[in-house]
Amino acid sequence: MKYKACEIISVGTELLLGDIINTDAAFLARELAALGIPCYYQSVVGDNPARLRTTLETALSRSDLIVLTGGLGPTADDLTKETAAAVMGKTLVLHEPSYARIRDILTKRNFPETENQKKQAMLPADAVVFDNDYGTAPGFAMTAQTENGEKTMILLPGPPRELEPLFSERVRPYLAAQSETMFCSVNIGMYGIGEAAVGHILRDYMEHGQNPTVAPYCGEGEVRLRLTARGNTEEACRQLCLQLAEEIRGVSCEPYKPGTMNDYIFGIDCDSLQEALVGLLRRKHLTVSAAESCTGGYVAKRITDIPGASEVLSGAYVTYSEETKQAMVGVQAETLRDHSVYSAEVAAEMARGCRASVGADIGIGITGVAGTEDAVVTQNGVSVTVPAGTVYIACADAGNVTVEKLQLPPGRRAPSEAREYVRRRASSHALFMALRMAEKL
Amino acid sequence: MKYKACEIISVGTELLLGDIINTDAAFLARELAALGIPCYYQSVVGDNPARLRTTLETALSRSDLIVLTGGLGPTADDLTKETAAAVMGKTLVLHEPSYARIRDILTKRNFPETENQKKQAMLPADAVVFDNDYGTAPGFAMTAQTENGEKTMILLPGPPRELEPLFSERVRPYLAAQSETMFCSVNIGMYGIGEAAVGHILRDYMEHGQNPTVAPYCGEGEVRLRLTARGNTEEACRQLCLQLAEEIRGVSCEPYKPGTMNDYIFGIDCDSLQEALVGLLRRKHLTVSAAESCTGGYVAKRITDIPGASEVLSGAYVTYSEETKQAMVGVQAETLRDHSVYSAEVAAEMARGCRASVGADIGIGITGVAGTEDAVVTQNGVSVTVPAGTVYIACADAGNVTVEKLQLPPGRRAPSEAREYVRRRASSHALFMALRMAEKL
Repeated sequence: MKYKACEIISVGTELLLGDIINTDAAFLARELAALGIPCYYQSVVGDNPARLRTTLETALSRSDLIVLTGGLGPTADDLTKETAAAVMGKTLVLHEPSYARIRDILTKRNFPETENQKKQAMLPADAVVFDNDYGTAPGFAMTAQTENGEKTMILLPGPPRELEPLFSERVRPYLAAQSETMFCSVNIGMYGIGEAAVGHILRDYMEHGQNPTVAPYCGEGEVRLRLTARGNTEEACRQLCLQLAEEIRGVSCEPYKPGTMNDYIFGIDCDSLQEALVGLLRRKHLTVSAAESCTGGYVAKRITDIPGASEVLSGAYVTYSEETKQAMVGVQAETLRDHSVYSAEVAAEMARGCRASVGADIGIGITGVAGTEDAVVTQNGVSVTVPAGTVYIACADAGNVTVEKLQLPPGRRAPSEAREYVRRRASSHALFMALRMAEKL
Repeated sequence: MKYKACEIISVGTELLLGDIINTDAAFLARELAALGIPCYYQSVVGDNPARLRTTLETALSRSDLIVLTGGLGPTADDLTKETAAAVMGKTLVLHEPSYARIRDILTKRNFPETENQKKQAMLPADAVVFDNDYGTAPGFAMTAQTENGEKTMILLPGPPRELEPLFSERVRPYLAAQSETMFCSVNIGMYGIGEAAVGHILRDYMEHGQNPTVAPYCGEGEVRLRLTARGNTEEACRQLCLQLAEEIRGVSCEPYKPGTMNDYIFGIDCDSLQEALVGLLRRKHLTVSAAESCTGGYVAKRITDIPGASEVLSGAYVTYSEETKQAMVGVQAETLRDHSVYSAEVAAEMARGCRASVGADIGIGITGVAGTEDAVVTQNGVSVTVPAGTVYIACADAGNVTVEKLQLPPGRRAPSEAREYVRRRASSHALFMALRMAEKL
């Protein structure tokens, strides 16, 4: 790639006040990384010419590509373009095609024409213009020779619904045309192992891996491992990543965890556990149902997040009380009495019950204590305290039921976060158990 | 306020790669603005000591308060603390209380103790330590005299679920104590009105409101209006906000929307529609059930997000196929045949059916087309195309059923986002309809 160092500058007082979240910077960072353009800094500065000027001067001293968003509006406080052009030693002239395009948009919207619109069409004479099909302000690139070498600035509108398609359709091809090297990433999705353990187990790959590089990202109980390769073709990069992914499957997790990495991998280039599960069930023509207590519909919601879920799920239950556990999925009163509602036996009956009722291949049953307060239940007439974070998860097929007990540490979280954590982890665990069961069917 | 200029620096290569969105910066910017601390710059830099050092030096030259997040982890590439301390001329020493706290956490998690943990407990001797109840890395503030005057740096952990409560519980009071003026905010939650309309309707309050100030924040179909007052006591500030909130309830929404603002308000200082609904149902000793098709458990999941949901929901259904709509909640075959599965009539039968089956006061029925592809259904033997984003939502009490049809524009969203948008909006609309129905019972 022609560019050795890039940075992203977002202009807007609303960002400095925290009124909006800077999704533009994340979008651009992802896109630039995918193009193989190394990006070392992001900055946010308000609609203030003096502060923007010093920010631009600092950027020019250390980067050769600067991507700016925001401040291209028609009003007097939008000064990004004027300031950037001055720093680059460019004069703005009226860009007739953009002016015609803007007048056309305004006519269609029945907006009166003002001098402000002319301001939006003023561009450096030698700019590469990116026509904006999603708003009035055009994007553009300008290049100048400085004492630190050739510098390019790309200015783009701030609203994400303009920026994102404009970048994808016009700026990405402009940048890709300047590169000889391709980059490609493959993501490995894992469940049941923490980021810290993955970091220890794959330490050598992460510290010394050059092509592909290896980096872990964590979520709630899920870890994503990103392999990034560079090469001459996308296919060659992808093959390098997939070869390494196969190698990683065989790596032993001892002494941090039992088994090999393969035991924790739910998918390659698969965004989520639910995507892995729905994909596998569809390929094998299998179906699933669920009876959920503490997760309250979270498992069903996640399964139906995935397009095509109707092929694998026809119905599911939220059985939040003892009565609905009996009425909806046939949990026995004796089981509730003898083992209490928070028990492996009740989870198993819920899994078998929803499976039978809906006629699914796999049934999931979940019962437990979300939140931060311990629950007190009656078991055989005796009061028993069940700690918060105790969850029983059952998976049933035609012949077998597997039940696993989780004891999720709610500890160091705000109560609402602890509740979400327990519910999310329990639903993830259920999806992972169903995936492993479906693999064997 | 003691601080004249503040800036926020986020440290993390995952931000530079666009793997995560910088919600921390927006959170801190909002909090600092609410404290009356002016913030002129935000920066993102990777886990690279040399680049972090120059970023810190630039920040020290122009700001007197610098808030850093990220890079406080236990591994070797987490160097924020070491670099910041060096720039401030501080030596790190073992902070015994933090070390004991970290060892305690690890013991409970059955993690082996390593030198890495000691690294997390190394702090400047004169630091003000913010105990982290939500993770291992402590936050802290350090102050130094420089040639440009007194400078303060505050270092905080990067994960939002640690940063946000830690800031609210420990850092905000620390900063507030350095000010003579108190700030206090009240949030008004609204549904069914867009941020742009709210902006027009409350323009005068937003542009000229001094105390309280008024600012809107938007979510998916939900708008939050934040009123921030300053005064000598928190109670006085809160009263100012609540008085203005009452005034805003009466503001006409014409010509942008029918009615007054009150018609769109679901709660004051209430985080979500589900919190408003569960709270109201509990106060009125009412119960709710749901039969969900395209939302697939999203409504039940959101209701059970709220602690105490078991008082208001005992059971609910995901009826994703025509068969389960009939078997689980008694939708009639004739209704499906005559009106098709995507119809007000089917939604109404789902609402009545789940209400009757569970014995709830209010039943919710939802059927529609999520995602980006139009659906083709058979109605009275004729093929009918139903556009993506068409959703029928019914709410039933003992005597009445109300059905509303949404036609949600997928807009220029990626398919997975369009699906989530339709499902989230439909679930929000159902919660809002149930809230309005419960108000009348």
